[in-house]
Formats: sequence, C-alpha cells, structure tokens
Amino acid sequence: MLDTALAAIRPLDDDAMAQARALHARLTKPAGSLGVLEELSVRLAGLAGACPPPLPEPGAVAIFAADHGVHRQRVTGWPQEVTAQMVANFLAGGAVVNAFARQVGASVTVVDVGVATALEPADGLVQARVRPGTADLASGPAMTVDEARAAIDVGLRVAADLHAAGARVLLTGDMGIANTTAAAALVAGFTGADAAEVTGRGTGVDDETYRHKVAVVAAALRRHRPDPVDPIGVLAAIGGLEHAALSGFILGAAARRIPVIVDGVSAVAASLAAASLAPAATGAMVAGHRSVEPGATVGLRHLGLQPLVDLGLRLGEGTGALLAWPIVASAVRVLHEVATFDAAGVSEK
Amino acid sequence: MLDTALAAIRPLDDDAMAQARALHARLTKPAGSLGVLEELSVRLAGLAGACPPPLPEPGAVAIFAADHGVHRQRVTGWPQEVTAQMVANFLAGGAVVNAFARQVGASVTVVDVGVATALEPADGLVQARVRPGTADLASGPAMTVDEARAAIDVGLRVAADLHAAGARVLLTGDMGIANTTAAAALVAGFTGADAAEVTGRGTGVDDETYRHKVAVVAAALRRHRPDPVDPIGVLAAIGGLEHAALSGFILGAAARRIPVIVDGVSAVAASLAAASLAPAATGAMVAGHRSVEPGATVGLRHLGLQPLVDLGLRLGEGTGALLAWPIVASAVRVLHEVATFDAAGVSEK
Repeated sequence: MLDTALAAIRPLDDDAMAQARALHARLTKPAGSLGVLEELSVRLAGLAGACPPPLPEPGAVAIFAADHGVHRQRVTGWPQEVTAQMVANFLAGGAVVNAFARQVGASVTVVDVGVATALEPADGLVQARVRPGTADLASGPAMTVDEARAAIDVGLRVAADLHAAGARVLLTGDMGIANTTAAAALVAGFTGADAAEVTGRGTGVDDETYRHKVAVVAAALRRHRPDPVDPIGVLAAIGGLEHAALSGFILGAAARRIPVIVDGVSAVAASLAAASLAPAATGAMVAGHRSVEPGATVGLRHLGLQPLVDLGLRLGEGTGALLAWPIVASAVRVLHEVATFDAAGVSEK
Repeated sequence: MLDTALAAIRPLDDDAMAQARALHARLTKPAGSLGVLEELSVRLAGLAGACPPPLPEPGAVAIFAADHGVHRQRVTGWPQEVTAQMVANFLAGGAVVNAFARQVGASVTVVDVGVATALEPADGLVQARVRPGTADLASGPAMTVDEARAAIDVGLRVAADLHAAGARVLLTGDMGIANTTAAAALVAGFTGADAAEVTGRGTGVDDETYRHKVAVVAAALRRHRPDPVDPIGVLAAIGGLEHAALSGFILGAAARRIPVIVDGVSAVAASLAAASLAPAATGAMVAGHRSVEPGATVGLRHLGLQPLVDLGLRLGEGTGALLAWPIVASAVRVLHEVATFDAAGVSEK
C-alpha cells in the first residue's frame, strides 16, 4: 500500500497555481488583501491540479489512539488507562474534539492502532491494533520496522476509506498518554534539533518532570541515532503507533490530492516522517494551528508551513485542525464565488 | 435610543465567570489546554450572566457603508464610486464577505448610512442615509454632532432589529472608500497615539500616497484636537458615518448582552468610541482578527483585546470577523457539551 501511495504523490501543478493567481487579481478586492489565504488557495489549486480547486468539504477527523511504553519513565502525571478512557469519551461524543467537530460539521472516526487494553467494538471505532502499545523507547526500539509499516498501512487505509465515503479534506487527530515524548523525539530525529528545543510540557508537567522528560528524549536520541534517510526506521525506534499511522494518513491524503489539516505536535512529527518518505507530500499539508509544544513550531518551520491559528492550544485530539478548517474552506470558496471586477461592474484602482 | 442602551450596559457577571472557570476545571481535558479559548468562554459567561452562556448562533453581519469627504485629499487610489459599486456587489452576493458568510451560515445585511450616491431599494439593504457622505475632515468637521448621533442611532436600530430577528452574535462590517484615513484619525484621537503609528496603507497605497495620508491624519488631529471625554464630538469631527453607526451597533450588542465580533481597523475605531461612551461595553467585544492596518493593533491593545485570527488580512467588509466566528462558537460549545471527568469515567492526573 505504501509504495502505491508514494508513487501517486505528485508535485503541485504549476498551471493550476498560475490560473489561481491570475483569478485572484481579477476578483473584487484589493490585490493581496486576503493575506495568507490567497497563497493557501493557490497552493490547494496546485494540489488538486484545478482552478478553482474543489471545496474542501465534507471534512473527516481521524483520531489515532495508541499507548506508549515510555510512559513507565514517568514523563507525564496522567495514568496510562486514560488513553482507553478518552477513546470511550470520543465514542460517546463527550470530548472537546467532538464539540468542535459538531460546530463545523466534521465526522469523527476513532482508530485503535495500539491502545494497551482491549476495546469493545463500537460505532465509529476502527479496530486496527498493531500491538498493545509500544515498547519503551528509552530502553530499546519502540516497535519493529514491520510493525511501523503495518501502522502506516492502517493510516493509509483509513484515509482511503474516508475518501471513498466522500471526505474531501482530512483532519489529523491523536490520543496517547505520553505521546508528546515520542513526538518530541521524532521532531528532533527528523530536524536535527536538540531535545531541549523540541520537548514541551505536554498536558502540563511540573518543572522536575519536564527536566526529566528532556533527559529521556535526549537519551533516546543518543541511543537510537535516528537517521531521516530511513524514516520508517526512525518511526520504529522512537515513534508511537499513532505517529506511524498518521504518517500513512497524511500520505493517503497527498496521494488523492486532497488537503490534510495537521493538528498539533504529534501530527507535525508524523508530517515530518511523511515528508521524508515523499517530499512532495508537503503540498497537501495545511498547518492547522501552532501548538504550545515547541516541537510543533520547530517541525512546521522545517516543513515550511505557516499555522493558521495560534491560540495557545495544547490539547491534541484534532482540536486545532478543526478550528482551522472553516478558514481553509473560506479561502477556497473565494475562488469559486467571488465576482470579478468586470462581472460586478466595480471600478479598479 | 443611545441613553437607553448606555443604561442597559452592565459589567461582566462575576458569579457566572466563576462558575465557568470551575466548570472548565472539571471537563475532560488538561487544565488550561484550550489556551485563550478558555478565558474567552469565561468572559462570554460573564457577558450573558449565565454558565454556560448561550451558543453565539445564529450570526449576523451588518455592513455599514458610507463615503468620505476626505477622499478629495487623494488618500487612496480607488475612485469614490466604488463604495456604491461594492454595495451592489454585496447585495448580489459576489463579494468576499458573502462567500465567507455562506461558508459559516451568517446572514448579511447592508446598511446605507451615508453613501454619496442614491441607491435603489433592494432586499438586504437598509436605507438609513444620514447624509450623502461626510464633509472633508481635513478642512472642517466631518459631520455635525446631531448627524453623528443619528448615525449612532442607525447602528443601535440595526442591532435591535437583528437581535429581534434571532441573531445571538453580531459581526461588524464596513465599506467606504477612504475610510481607513478616518479610522486612523479616530484611533489616534481615542488612544493618544501619533498619526504615523496608526496610519496604514489601507487597500495598498504607494509610498508617496502613504506619506501624504499620514500628513493628512496628523493635520486633522492638530486641527480638531479630539478629546476622548467627548466621544460623539470626536466621531463628528474626524470620523465616518459608518464608524458612528458601528459604535451604536456595538453598544446595541452590549446592551443585549450578546457578543459582537469586531473586524478590522474601522470596527476597532468604532469600538474605541463605544468604550469611551460605556467602558463596560468592552465585555461584549471579541476581537475577530488582527488587521494589517497598524491602527487596529494600537486600538485593540488600548481596549485590552487579543485578536483570534492573524492572517495578514486588510479587506474589511466583516471578513476577519467571519473567520473568527466558528472559533468563538467552538469556545462556548465546550461549556455546553464536553463531559466532566466524573461523568465520563476518565481518571485525573
């Protein structure tokens, strides 16, 4: 599956982008007055290979849930069972991601790609567990390369299924207690940044736990020596099952030439892996927001992506991506619906 | 009408805010993980005097359109007739504000509070012209104090009508060729900032026109010596009819304890006037976005408001307010729909 997706990912279409820029110049607004939304809409024309590009609707969030062996290193104050409890909360519609999704009309799919405890089947739950949580990346590889590939395939399959069900924009979601530790290690591994630059307080650890978390990430980098030339090896050594799956999910969007709105630091880590596998996949990525986690900013800078929303969020789940979605859709809608100076009889400068 | 509105505006309700803070602490998310959205939702609870506050839906944009005598000072490259042409574009649904409003399901009302040329009646157009454009603020007062009061009353009436029709959040819109010159003068007048600090390039003037525009604003401040203790006098001397009407519109929202999402520099200028008339009205103001116009940032800082969106927009019309609306609604929705730790059976830290 991965090879097929990688082969389908193409650079942005220059002709469609040129058409979109030319159209913007004729629309009834001062040139450039929509700021970064203009270039965003041009890029989405290039992604689709059409001007205007399709409206990015309907939207589908997939929340990839998994547990982390590194939890035993006491990098967070939350017990591991919260991952499964939050999955139940998502399925019951009671989490923030559900409220935000209802606000904008997005569907929510929860994917068990590696929760530690067995989950009952439920509506809205895709059961695709590769293994019951990773091993502890502080004392060995988090998973095997075959397991990382299997998790990537889970993400590719979810992207394919949501696209087949009608989604025309995908939004990344994640849940996994301790997953900002793995995400920080991945961002460092793919960008070359130091552990201290990319490690944050996650859900809000105290100073002592924070210093310990940085040390755990730094030790993991020394032990595993991640090499971005081998992105699947990096994911296997220091990643989470949700990070691997998110990489596949992002590549699946890029292969279908539809945008994927990237949420917080876990999604950014997965985006770095996806871009290492297929550099042109960055054309499909829209940075939803700037998470408080410093690794998110380091990773987005490396990818050359500018976040749309910057409101101090550090929740994950897909919440930042959902806040950004109406902005992305509004940007594209301009190319569909705004009148030209000629057609509207408006004088030019 | 103004006195009635001013008498109805109350400070934020501390009890409702305390309830909202206590509720946030029990919801299934790490404390503080929604960043500025948490404090925003707390403030809207204080505005409504209820926890949770009502969802800010449906939403209604009102675009106050007017012309400006200062246009003759060549502060913009656009001909004055574009104001009326853009009103026709709004009514035909062809402008960016219309596309953005359709994206999020907001209604659009256009209010002629002072367009220079006569407009035909049309669906969606409120005809409430106080005078056919202001006089040139560079050579005398822009309007009389009675005219400023009449324009404020137009805004109050539009707010009342939209609220009566069901709107539970108001969004500010504006259209008026040359209105960033008057807006800059107002921001300087209400904040004490220099002309150079608050004057921007509007729709995109060249360097020479920009320097001239700063000089026009500076001369107007020297001539009229605006005193914030007399906000209606300030509006009359150096404002636009749309700025006065927007002040009334904002006060009308505050009097009904519903939020008003403030768009760009013209709305910020009107917010400063509204806050000078009723300091507690700031409790109803939500800064939709940070416009490129420097006066917007100066004014928002003076009001103590942090913009939700910062994407380099400089279009006006209400476009930035519309981008922010789903974010505001999402923030409030959290207090309605997210499960508590107890109810969801999620362990705490």
